[in-house]
Amino acid sequence: MTSDEVRLEDLPLREDLRGRSPYGAPQLDVPVRLNTNENPYPPPQALVDDVTEAVREVAANLHRYPDRDAIALRQDLAAYLSGATGVPLTERNLWAANGSNEVLQQILQAFGGPGRSALGFEPSYSMHPIIAAGTRTDWVPAPRRDDFMLDTETAARIVGERKPDIVFVTSPNNPTGGSIPFAELELVLRAAPGIVVVDEAYAEFSSQRSAVELIGSYPAQLIVSRTMSKAFAFAGGRLGYLAAAPAVIDALQLVRLPYHLSLLTQAAARAALRHADATLATVAKLAAERERVAESLLGLGFSPVPSDANFILFGRFADARASWQSYVDNGVLIRDVGITGHLRVTIGTPEENDAFLAASKEVPR
Amino acid sequence: MTSDEVRLEDLPLREDLRGRSPYGAPQLDVPVRLNTNENPYPPPQALVDDVTEAVREVAANLHRYPDRDAIALRQDLAAYLSGATGVPLTERNLWAANGSNEVLQQILQAFGGPGRSALGFEPSYSMHPIIAAGTRTDWVPAPRRDDFMLDTETAARIVGERKPDIVFVTSPNNPTGGSIPFAELELVLRAAPGIVVVDEAYAEFSSQRSAVELIGSYPAQLIVSRTMSKAFAFAGGRLGYLAAAPAVIDALQLVRLPYHLSLLTQAAARAALRHADATLATVAKLAAERERVAESLLGLGFSPVPSDANFILFGRFADARASWQSYVDNGVLIRDVGITGHLRVTIGTPEENDAFLAASKEVPR
Repeated sequence: MTSDEVRLEDLPLREDLRGRSPYGAPQLDVPVRLNTNENPYPPPQALVDDVTEAVREVAANLHRYPDRDAIALRQDLAAYLSGATGVPLTERNLWAANGSNEVLQQILQAFGGPGRSALGFEPSYSMHPIIAAGTRTDWVPAPRRDDFMLDTETAARIVGERKPDIVFVTSPNNPTGGSIPFAELELVLRAAPGIVVVDEAYAEFSSQRSAVELIGSYPAQLIVSRTMSKAFAFAGGRLGYLAAAPAVIDALQLVRLPYHLSLLTQAAARAALRHADATLATVAKLAAERERVAESLLGLGFSPVPSDANFILFGRFADARASWQSYVDNGVLIRDVGITGHLRVTIGTPEENDAFLAASKEVPR
Repeated sequence: MTSDEVRLEDLPLREDLRGRSPYGAPQLDVPVRLNTNENPYPPPQALVDDVTEAVREVAANLHRYPDRDAIALRQDLAAYLSGATGVPLTERNLWAANGSNEVLQQILQAFGGPGRSALGFEPSYSMHPIIAAGTRTDWVPAPRRDDFMLDTETAARIVGERKPDIVFVTSPNNPTGGSIPFAELELVLRAAPGIVVVDEAYAEFSSQRSAVELIGSYPAQLIVSRTMSKAFAFAGGRLGYLAAAPAVIDALQLVRLPYHLSLLTQAAARAALRHADATLATVAKLAAERERVAESLLGLGFSPVPSDANFILFGRFADARASWQSYVDNGVLIRDVGITGHLRVTIGTPEENDAFLAASKEVPR
């Protein structure tokens, strides 16, 4: 048996991985890509220049390990998030990693694992159960309403009954788009026996108040995760972060891999944060486009789900998979998120959205 | 209880993390830092310029997710490793992550976990048992000889008896410095029922043949991990990689977090690889300095352990901790790796090594 002849089945793979496929949206070369909720607007030239200059400055030190605690970056993230939420925060409240996926994995390593459970309200971000499986945390799926909104009273009841060690609340929810009203969040927090992670990856697109405002009231429970991948137009830079009580950060430092954030990531993210005003100026444009696309979809006879994010889930399709392929054939890549009769489109530039709407007239329902 | 008043003990932390401290060498501001086995030579200006230019080119695409499979980088790593070992390799044999710690974590997520075990020959790289714990893999410590070399026959016997799912062989071994002779490696491979990870983080400093030559003979077992942190002088860039049969790479893709390698990391690592000849030219200088430092330590009455890497473990100290502090007080930061009577020094520039040797005359034995 040569190296090339060995198959996955020949390896002593963990039992629960057998038969699985790697996570990930198809990366197809199609003119209009509206499938991974990226910000369609490239970073402004000033940001590109600043990132480049920051990298030049630190590159002379590439032979040295980076600051293991990423203090300066966490200070900058604290300053941004304080400004955005009005909540006083310092670097002791902030933690960062290579994308919010790594942040979530660290949370599950610290507070989940074998014999513990994590609960989420589905459909939601599909990486939540995958990261739970990767850390051997039992996954407890709980339902949303038929309109994909969270029924907070039912949610609180289920959380109280099932007593999961970790509860995920995604707001705005991916892939359905709606937010949980701020006032209802405390119902879930009061019902939860342990950690509650509010995943606010799309918070900048929403007009809801941030769960960050509740950290002071639920310091031993609440973790708010965020990302620079969406509104910040920094998906390629891979920077996720979270806000919580300082003791939560201490806990995560027990499971993080040392030097997990490179010198380049720390420098580039700090440079990008200096241009937050310019980058976040695209948020209003995208929110306006979101409303235009939703209305147009309605006009075309589709049923878009009301969204607070930079994407729209819409239906109905008799065969969502076939319709997805038809979009691709029309040069538009959107996402089949596995919800019967529905597809998800990321809000792009006006031109990209026009291309999507034009294709929408062609695809089979 | 306010956010600042919550303590680690108030959180629902995983039981086995209670009472632990985060991993990591002290990051002290001392003139001569010889504690983390970094390459002391800064990257050449041409590399700095090339990394900067590569980042400028990709930064305009920071709003997009990076290539999830990092194909181009893996091709470049395959080309380098083929050249270094004489073994034909393609990107299908290569995998990369944010430092070799993440590579090792992914291996343990795929092939270890609850109910499985990993064995290592101690003292060795202290992250092996920590990453095993992080993935809930049982850790089985096995001994080395009193001179810190691996007794391969004993090793094979223990592996045959304990039947660990994963065996770690570190060669050259950190923190003791010796390599396992190439001819003896097969004894361990034949005894092992499952995966054998040969951790070759320091391989460039050694004259031993690489375990990569054995992948063709043990394709369902052997994984060789490497890093750009040491000889490549790229510790700040955080790029670890491995070579194995393509099916092993398929397995790791089931557990990797999507888009784990940023656009910047991929571009910067590729730029650094283009300057491999210049960077690796420091290896011969460091090996020569290693011999000089070892002889000088001998001359001072110390007992340096023969090393194939860019560091030397040496003794004996009556109180290694007190002597470590005395080195710090003399402006030289080395490493107390927890081996009774011993300390570890990284080989630095000739000037840094002179400072270390001068301090060695002052410290208490």
